[in-house]
Amino acid sequence: MVLTGNQLIGFAESCEGERTLRAYAPAQGVDVEPSFALSVTSEIERAMTLADRAFDTFGSTSQTTRAALLDRIADNIEALGDALVERACLESALPAGRITGERGRTTAQLRMFAGLLRDGTWRDATIDLPQPDRQPAPKPDLRRILVPLGPVVVFGASNFPLAFSVAGGDTASALAAGCPVVFKAHPAHPGTSEMVGRAIVDACQAEGMPDGTFSLLHADPQHAQMLVEHPLTQAVAFTGSQAVGKTLVRLAAERDTPIPVYAEMGSVNPVFLVPGFGSRLPAVAHGYATSLTLGVGQFCTNPGVVVGVVSEELEQFVVETTEALAKVAAAAMLTPGILAAYQSGSHRLAEHPDVKTVFTGIQSDGQATPSLFTTRAETFLSDHTLGEEVFGPAGLVVVCDNFEQMKRVARNLEGQLTVTLQTSGEVTDEERELLPLAVRKAGRIVRNSFPTGVEVCPAMQHGGPYPSSSNARTTSVGTAAILRFVRPVCYQDLPADLLPEELQDKNPLHIWRKIDGRLTHDPVRSPGVHGT
Amino acid sequence: MVLTGNQLIGFAESCEGERTLRAYAPAQGVDVEPSFALSVTSEIERAMTLADRAFDTFGSTSQTTRAALLDRIADNIEALGDALVERACLESALPAGRITGERGRTTAQLRMFAGLLRDGTWRDATIDLPQPDRQPAPKPDLRRILVPLGPVVVFGASNFPLAFSVAGGDTASALAAGCPVVFKAHPAHPGTSEMVGRAIVDACQAEGMPDGTFSLLHADPQHAQMLVEHPLTQAVAFTGSQAVGKTLVRLAAERDTPIPVYAEMGSVNPVFLVPGFGSRLPAVAHGYATSLTLGVGQFCTNPGVVVGVVSEELEQFVVETTEALAKVAAAAMLTPGILAAYQSGSHRLAEHPDVKTVFTGIQSDGQATPSLFTTRAETFLSDHTLGEEVFGPAGLVVVCDNFEQMKRVARNLEGQLTVTLQTSGEVTDEERELLPLAVRKAGRIVRNSFPTGVEVCPAMQHGGPYPSSSNARTTSVGTAAILRFVRPVCYQDLPADLLPEELQDKNPLHIWRKIDGRLTHDPVRSPGVHGT
Repeated sequence: MVLTGNQLIGFAESCEGERTLRAYAPAQGVDVEPSFALSVTSEIERAMTLADRAFDTFGSTSQTTRAALLDRIADNIEALGDALVERACLESALPAGRITGERGRTTAQLRMFAGLLRDGTWRDATIDLPQPDRQPAPKPDLRRILVPLGPVVVFGASNFPLAFSVAGGDTASALAAGCPVVFKAHPAHPGTSEMVGRAIVDACQAEGMPDGTFSLLHADPQHAQMLVEHPLTQAVAFTGSQAVGKTLVRLAAERDTPIPVYAEMGSVNPVFLVPGFGSRLPAVAHGYATSLTLGVGQFCTNPGVVVGVVSEELEQFVVETTEALAKVAAAAMLTPGILAAYQSGSHRLAEHPDVKTVFTGIQSDGQATPSLFTTRAETFLSDHTLGEEVFGPAGLVVVCDNFEQMKRVARNLEGQLTVTLQTSGEVTDEERELLPLAVRKAGRIVRNSFPTGVEVCPAMQHGGPYPSSSNARTTSVGTAAILRFVRPVCYQDLPADLLPEELQDKNPLHIWRKIDGRLTHDPVRSPGVHGT
Repeated sequence: MVLTGNQLIGFAESCEGERTLRAYAPAQGVDVEPSFALSVTSEIERAMTLADRAFDTFGSTSQTTRAALLDRIADNIEALGDALVERACLESALPAGRITGERGRTTAQLRMFAGLLRDGTWRDATIDLPQPDRQPAPKPDLRRILVPLGPVVVFGASNFPLAFSVAGGDTASALAAGCPVVFKAHPAHPGTSEMVGRAIVDACQAEGMPDGTFSLLHADPQHAQMLVEHPLTQAVAFTGSQAVGKTLVRLAAERDTPIPVYAEMGSVNPVFLVPGFGSRLPAVAHGYATSLTLGVGQFCTNPGVVVGVVSEELEQFVVETTEALAKVAAAAMLTPGILAAYQSGSHRLAEHPDVKTVFTGIQSDGQATPSLFTTRAETFLSDHTLGEEVFGPAGLVVVCDNFEQMKRVARNLEGQLTVTLQTSGEVTDEERELLPLAVRKAGRIVRNSFPTGVEVCPAMQHGGPYPSSSNARTTSVGTAAILRFVRPVCYQDLPADLLPEELQDKNPLHIWRKIDGRLTHDPVRSPGVHGT
């Protein structure tokens, strides 16, 4: 595939802006061809108008039609073969094994949503049958189902150039819901973005989707803001930093018609070493070092903070973690900006008067090495900045005087994507006390394992209390991610042929439905108002 | 029951503020005893702190425990007998028949949520079984369930002194979810509020709930704002005007930790007269006049706008509606403020140069009579204020030149709670064209009936696109209202005795669950990671 560096606006290409964006290869330290055009206002306008028009038909396509689209996108991505892997590695400095795995995750995710659509039950079809003879007034026929919101703007993340980017979970779930997507590519991997964007556009054309179902834009921050503020935009999905996420949330709230922003903004994902955990050393220390340094620590679920009670087992944990970290090689980070932020975050910790540096590797030029710090819980509780994420392989061990203080640390946490409990294996009173505190603060509770490695499945919850996410009631990973892009509509006394198939008496799609409050996949037995 | 005029803060009474609030009897035009104290800052603080503490235990009570609480509240409300009906009639000027019906709706709603809790399926228990031998990495055991958010602040509405007030749908669904409630009473019915508040407090005590599970405050706007801004508040529910609703949404968005505000802010609920509807005259006209004037037009779902195509059938509709409106007696409105707003809204229409007054009854002193206006679609499309709600029995008929213009009116609507289609009964092409436009704009589509009278059941959707609601993805009526106050949590690799019963292998509560993506109420068959 030849990269053109153009915007993909519906089925057309466009290049009205200047070609000022160049991809950068962080491992090699060089710019890469070609140059990409940045979008201009008229292109933003065209993408949004097309998306809105596409919604008129795309929003009411059948579930099986959209399932075929998602499958086709997955096939097209696989058909890109090694070229995609090579370009993604070049632009991210991530190893080929990781990118190949991520590609598998991306295509599996698309196919998971296709399966969800074919099953059909996700639309929460709910039927309350009429009671024409009820006193004092008859009860009408009421049927409720989830319908898509409309055009969705999705922002690509830097750290997953495939699985949280152009054809990642946000795009897959929005398209699955029936929402056209206008995608804002991450400038760290414009070439990868164009390749995947073409795979989606080709799939839309092959499957007969309307023009504007998908667009890919390379936008600077000012034009990205226009996308969020555009009156036709109905929702925004974002994975990235708290600074940018909070800005998007604010912009969306200040619109004349506010819209939801689903921002997944990362967190420090605390690991609590429950007293007695030492019986599982050295596994806990090795597991921690592995999780902390996986992908050069560039994960939203990276466990940046460890909380333990002062003890021999805690000292041993620090020693063994340090040994493990010492074996980790220096590696390039995703972008020069991320590397600089990691270095300044590490320096901030190192220079903090009440933080002790346990380990820093050799700071190779242009590469990152892991670091480990310790501080007392008292310091951690009084200095809010110590609880802020340092994106990269930096760990801070918070040493509590006793278990009561550990609970105080738990109670004072900000919202987190995950909280991990490391225990002896046996359930203790301490664990029973910590668990409800962890539940109040996090979207996922991990026990005797580590938070990196987010499964894509129905039971996953990737999203926790603010500020780890802007909306803790939703997830950006797993089948439930589709629920971000729909709203319920109730039909009162509509005849069968005006109802979506999911709500018709005969249940032609054989889905699970709630009828008068009971789950069933039977058809409606007693004839409804309309005898259908 | 003797009314004290005190705040009810958990199980205690408090009166630190001045007794400056007096109930007003709109039908009689007089103040009513006793006087009520307005809350002060320390009382706000105490109610929120108690609610947060109560959450530690209330949030993890069993479903059956909370079901018993809701049933007990319903019993206690019924036990108030005629005294409650009399006081509510006095404070609202609504007739006894309406208040008695509303009481039945309120207690039925509480018992509906009790039933939902006993059924248990609503918590969306989702289990993905582990695959320890999976390559390249084992799949962990993942189990997801909905958990309560924490303390919720609920604002009472003026127009339903029982069903959308102290023990109304918001309180019932928040308590059902496991969230303590701090209730801000509506100043239009402080006595009714205290009576129902005591019924809830008594039920909390009788059922052994923690102190602070429920508090009732009489707060001025400044203290109401403090409740929304309080760091312990996790969500807000509100039914009322767009002006107040939008203010609450803004306050919540500007917090350090933004929280969701579920504001149901009303709308004009357009009725589209689909060409051919005339075969159902005079039923359409009589039905419309009845719906428009029900409860003196003081409903969120009041159909304030009618859209028709210029024709003989439309003229006939206006004639017959006018005849029906002429028979409606003048009646007192809920408050002097609401009456004044209705009168100024009607005057605004009457004095609009391009609006024709078809009918106004005699404007009796202190009472409201219905009014009907017409205007051309061109005027309606160009003057945004004509689409704003006039709370009360005022109808505006928008006359379109042709069906194309009718569709343009539909496309240009703001978000609505409901859109109604009046048809001949037969499905026509015009109806097929209008329906998807209506779905884009509303939460509920009503056919050949009228939008007033909101059923309380699983299929109800009461909440539409902004600004009819702040969050179109939720409903404030029906079982799904509980979903506003919960978020999902995923447990990874937890042993059975640390899991909620709903997620344990054996399925001790016999609820429906999703296991590996399939709905079932069977126990987990293959032993999980932990062999439970």
